[in-house]
Amino acid sequence: MIKPFLNENFLLQNATAEKLYHDFAKELPIIDYHNHLPPDEIAQDKSFATITEVWLKGDHYKWRAMRANGIQERYITGETTDQEKFLQWAATVPYTMRNPLYHWTHLELQRYFGISRLLNADTAQEIFEQTNETLQSKGFSVKGLLRKMKVEVVCTTDHPTDSLEFHQQEMAAAGGLKMLPTFRPDKFIVVDAPDFLTYLEKLEGIVGYDISTFDKLVVALENRIDFFHALGCQLADHGLSQLFVDDATQWNNLDAILKKRKDQKKIEPREAAVFQMTMLYELSKIYYDKNWTMQLHLGAIRNNNSRLLRLAGADVGADSIGDYEQAAGLSAFLNRLDAEGQLTKTIIYNLNPRDNEVFATMIGNFNDGSSEGKIQWGSAWWFLDQKDGMEKQINTLSNMGLLSRFIGMLTDSRSFLSFPRHEYFRRILCNLLGKDVENGELPNDINWLGKLVEDICYHNAKQYFKF
Amino acid sequence: MIKPFLNENFLLQNATAEKLYHDFAKELPIIDYHNHLPPDEIAQDKSFATITEVWLKGDHYKWRAMRANGIQERYITGETTDQEKFLQWAATVPYTMRNPLYHWTHLELQRYFGISRLLNADTAQEIFEQTNETLQSKGFSVKGLLRKMKVEVVCTTDHPTDSLEFHQQEMAAAGGLKMLPTFRPDKFIVVDAPDFLTYLEKLEGIVGYDISTFDKLVVALENRIDFFHALGCQLADHGLSQLFVDDATQWNNLDAILKKRKDQKKIEPREAAVFQMTMLYELSKIYYDKNWTMQLHLGAIRNNNSRLLRLAGADVGADSIGDYEQAAGLSAFLNRLDAEGQLTKTIIYNLNPRDNEVFATMIGNFNDGSSEGKIQWGSAWWFLDQKDGMEKQINTLSNMGLLSRFIGMLTDSRSFLSFPRHEYFRRILCNLLGKDVENGELPNDINWLGKLVEDICYHNAKQYFKF
Amino acid sequence: MIKPFLNENFLLQNATAEKLYHDFAKELPIIDYHNHLPPDEIAQDKSFATITEVWLKGDHYKWRAMRANGIQERYITGETTDQEKFLQWAATVPYTMRNPLYHWTHLELQRYFGISRLLNADTAQEIFEQTNETLQSKGFSVKGLLRKMKVEVVCTTDHPTDSLEFHQQEMAAAGGLKMLPTFRPDKFIVVDAPDFLTYLEKLEGIVGYDISTFDKLVVALENRIDFFHALGCQLADHGLSQLFVDDATQWNNLDAILKKRKDQKKIEPREAAVFQMTMLYELSKIYYDKNWTMQLHLGAIRNNNSRLLRLAGADVGADSIGDYEQAAGLSAFLNRLDAEGQLTKTIIYNLNPRDNEVFATMIGNFNDGSSEGKIQWGSAWWFLDQKDGMEKQINTLSNMGLLSRFIGMLTDSRSFLSFPRHEYFRRILCNLLGKDVENGELPNDINWLGKLVEDICYHNAKQYFKF
Repeated sequence: MIKPFLNENFLLQNATAEKLYHDFAKELPIIDYHNHLPPDEIAQDKSFATITEVWLKGDHYKWRAMRANGIQERYITGETTDQEKFLQWAATVPYTMRNPLYHWTHLELQRYFGISRLLNADTAQEIFEQTNETLQSKGFSVKGLLRKMKVEVVCTTDHPTDSLEFHQQEMAAAGGLKMLPTFRPDKFIVVDAPDFLTYLEKLEGIVGYDISTFDKLVVALENRIDFFHALGCQLADHGLSQLFVDDATQWNNLDAILKKRKDQKKIEPREAAVFQMTMLYELSKIYYDKNWTMQLHLGAIRNNNSRLLRLAGADVGADSIGDYEQAAGLSAFLNRLDAEGQLTKTIIYNLNPRDNEVFATMIGNFNDGSSEGKIQWGSAWWFLDQKDGMEKQINTLSNMGLLSRFIGMLTDSRSFLSFPRHEYFRRILCNLLGKDVENGELPNDINWLGKLVEDICYHNAKQYFKF
Repeated sequence: MIKPFLNENFLLQNATAEKLYHDFAKELPIIDYHNHLPPDEIAQDKSFATITEVWLKGDHYKWRAMRANGIQERYITGETTDQEKFLQWAATVPYTMRNPLYHWTHLELQRYFGISRLLNADTAQEIFEQTNETLQSKGFSVKGLLRKMKVEVVCTTDHPTDSLEFHQQEMAAAGGLKMLPTFRPDKFIVVDAPDFLTYLEKLEGIVGYDISTFDKLVVALENRIDFFHALGCQLADHGLSQLFVDDATQWNNLDAILKKRKDQKKIEPREAAVFQMTMLYELSKIYYDKNWTMQLHLGAIRNNNSRLLRLAGADVGADSIGDYEQAAGLSAFLNRLDAEGQLTKTIIYNLNPRDNEVFATMIGNFNDGSSEGKIQWGSAWWFLDQKDGMEKQINTLSNMGLLSRFIGMLTDSRSFLSFPRHEYFRRILCNLLGKDVENGELPNDINWLGKLVEDICYHNAKQYFKF
Repeated sequence: MIKPFLNENFLLQNATAEKLYHDFAKELPIIDYHNHLPPDEIAQDKSFATITEVWLKGDHYKWRAMRANGIQERYITGETTDQEKFLQWAATVPYTMRNPLYHWTHLELQRYFGISRLLNADTAQEIFEQTNETLQSKGFSVKGLLRKMKVEVVCTTDHPTDSLEFHQQEMAAAGGLKMLPTFRPDKFIVVDAPDFLTYLEKLEGIVGYDISTFDKLVVALENRIDFFHALGCQLADHGLSQLFVDDATQWNNLDAILKKRKDQKKIEPREAAVFQMTMLYELSKIYYDKNWTMQLHLGAIRNNNSRLLRLAGADVGADSIGDYEQAAGLSAFLNRLDAEGQLTKTIIYNLNPRDNEVFATMIGNFNDGSSEGKIQWGSAWWFLDQKDGMEKQINTLSNMGLLSRFIGMLTDSRSFLSFPRHEYFRRILCNLLGKDVENGELPNDINWLGKLVEDICYHNAKQYFKF
């Protein structure tokens, strides 16, 4: 009667859901159109010495959980051995029950390593040894891991100043995998960020001239967009707290703001807002010309802990969900582009689930008949990338838009072992549809629903991006 | 085992729910105390040439879905035939699965036309012909459609400058249906709206004098309130983004603001806020004197798409959910009236479900023992008018107030085919109560619960409005 | 098939849940680390003349419900007899169905008085008499009531100027119950509150000198903290609308603000914010030195109804949920303390459930390896202290943090009959875990999960506070 943990019908709570998953979703390849995988490790088909290297290094989800469990920083980002770190993580795992980490951990051990035992302090040493050994075998290099999950496309996330050498190398290699860059120009949008000037100098070095005006900065970035485009880039991404209503149509002193910044003077919040929104607008028009897709990840409040920032750097697990106003700024920005006929395909992602309905309804304002689901509300992201978060995103999208036109899941991950998250998403999707069928809230037409499942899990994204 | 789609126990997931719905809720008449039905079509008992005319014309819910499905505007609000529009809509329907449109569509086909087939590209032509034919038969004029749903009262939504000629005509006709006007003075509250002056001139024409001061505007509106009252009006309605704490007690220059507006000068946001809140306050006192009910619909962000606004006008499906601050303004406004003993019966509706708890608890602050449920939190509205939205409203109201005193459902619709939404609400309500009984969270006393269901579905509203 | 109302498996919907509750949670003692119980009544082991006295007096939850039910104020906070008040409440009870009051009412009648009949107008008189009689028997004084619920520790909520005489008396009495004070200095933090000066004078009287500067105020409060500490105080508590980013590092004129206030001049919002955040910062450092736990209750909008405030005083059921910005202020405040190595154990509580995810993720930023779950997100509070609210808090904490390290439930209550809320919480917790096991989302390891249940219900709090 009690369902075994993580069996073949994991997350599938009725027969229709099982059918939809096993007969339609399960075997589909993966298009991972947004992640943070390291391009060098893909191009070089890296192998891993230990499970710690591929699983714990860089995984700030696990780090946060370990800190909450009272583990000291030296076992997390500090200078201990891979083995000690793994043992500390393993001892933490049972305390992560009901957190997505608990499911991910055991799903990844099962899918990649065939290990069904639960990870905890007792099994830690044995699993450490077994996974390390397996990682040395054929098929456990980066490309082997991706192939095991049927990954067709990965879109990495890259700075405008990146050389993209590994994308070039991988393109030349002509393997089965498509690795495409994504243009992420945050560093040139948030003018009051501490490292703005560092990146500006880097960009000046690449383009070979002094960037003394706003227009010159736009031209330099356009230059980089061309470069990215030539390597197959079709997406831009932006991580911002929020969009603002202000833009330079109201207050035209962008060159002065840039000069102030270069002179290391204090930028006022409103100046930063105008700079951000105008730069985003200028870039968006270029994306439109290239037929790119624009992504906006909105709502994080980052690097909250200055002690950890000093100690371990940015993005180490001290980010959280912010509560910024989102609707008016998004509306004004998308409308400005749409009114000028220059709104490109766009995916908006919110980090605070209280904004789900704002985002779900905002996308409905700017479809224009040019394609199905032109404006997308992105899959549940980061802290929301778990069962509740996904169910809420899928349900709200269903209620306020067209789930059938959704381009579906992405990992957003730094880890090569994260691809079972696509499976996780697919199971949740099938389960929700199955439940509706069993309850008489959807017609029991398995082929129709199976096709919609296939669309959401694979074909919609393929069609949307023309991969 | 799999429940047939949309059968007689649709949305009823247990035996208690079935009993509550079929034995208590099902046969009750409908009091639709807020909608946007056209009074002329009611008074004239209009007949419809095609299903497109009665079903697609003016239905911006369907339009949004069609745009999201990649349908071009000419098939939506443009110049094609009724048949072409219907076929495009029909082809979209399967892609609306899990959206309330999917349920509404099939519920309406079944309840009004007896059609149980699913609407899609294959069945479109046949259903187009069949429904058009049915629409020509007796009982399918406006009043026939209302009678079929046992509609007793409809409260339309009317501008202060409306002649109400059709309400007068219908009143004189003394039919079974009560059609009452609702006073909706937004045009005179939002002083910086583009069409404020147009309506002001219209009002000046009606009252026959120049409205040069704020007080004169209040007097002119009071004049119109008297006129509405004489025709049975008992409700006022206001659609605003939010209420503000500011009012003229702090800053008394309302005449100057009105003059600036008449001189077509720019109104500052704070001026608009003071004007709005003072006008609302003055009107509210008049409502209190008339024993009217005041409705506040808060939180929409409207006409986001200026291209569509130009092309197809206002209210064409480019509105969405805003994220405005609501608590402090609502509190200050209701308290000011309550403190002066002039707070009339009030219904507050929120569009953003993140505000559910703010609204659910705000109403609890201003009950005064004068009647049961004097201050009401309105039924899930617009984008929230779907199963999840209704369940959340009912559950939050239950947890933070008295569900038993709730005045229940309204259509808020422009369409004569929307009345099965009352059935939809009733099924959801019965299902929630039934589930609680089955789980041992409510006593299994069917007559007691049945009476509460009857109250919420019909008697509470009848008693509240004294219809 | 239909489960009887409120039977031994109330809220437990599967066999695993039943096992977890009955075998692990049920018999654990209670640590109630935050409530508003009157210390004098505990120390004096008060007995109650009527059920009204112990159940309705001071219970603003019931008062709100009665007002919403149309009951006049004289039956609520006015001058009628205890019997009349009870009868009015009893007549209201059936109308509270689905409100937590309905469950609490019957749970409390059953657990304390052994009464399983439902309370309503028909049973009112009989239950009034029976409970009054029972209240006269041995074991129904305050300490008897607490003993019946196995309460080990209660932490009351006390003003800095309180004499704590009853805590001293109880400490000396050396009974089985630990009654500890909690330091709640809101009156000295919110400088623009109407009664700031009253409390300041009181404090001056106690410390024996004129408090003319900000530093002197801090020293006076530190003096009181020492006094509280000597009586076993280990917690501070603060009820604020929100935290602000502003503090005196940016604007150093605290003495001037205090002087303005003493001169009864108007304090600007920004001045109040700077004063609040700097005082909170100074106090927090003292808490850290004492190894206290700091509690922050954020987000209420209080005393909305000035008529009721005049008539019946503060905290009479006219408070509701606010919609304040929370993330940036919380982040800046906690980070400032953490960066200086002076962040003490902290529990943050939100009143608006839309902020659940902000709070759940904020705590994850400031754990430092010094202990398990150092920064806690408090249990669902006030309006959220009900099944939906608790489930959301538990689920969000699970998804975004470590449920296993949660210190669990508290009553936050003014009533000696509220302790079954711990039972309510435990049932809900066990039910959620049980459901996950039955669905195959958690391993079926009852001893492991049973231990986690015990931790959350009792041991985590005991360990966290070192009680």
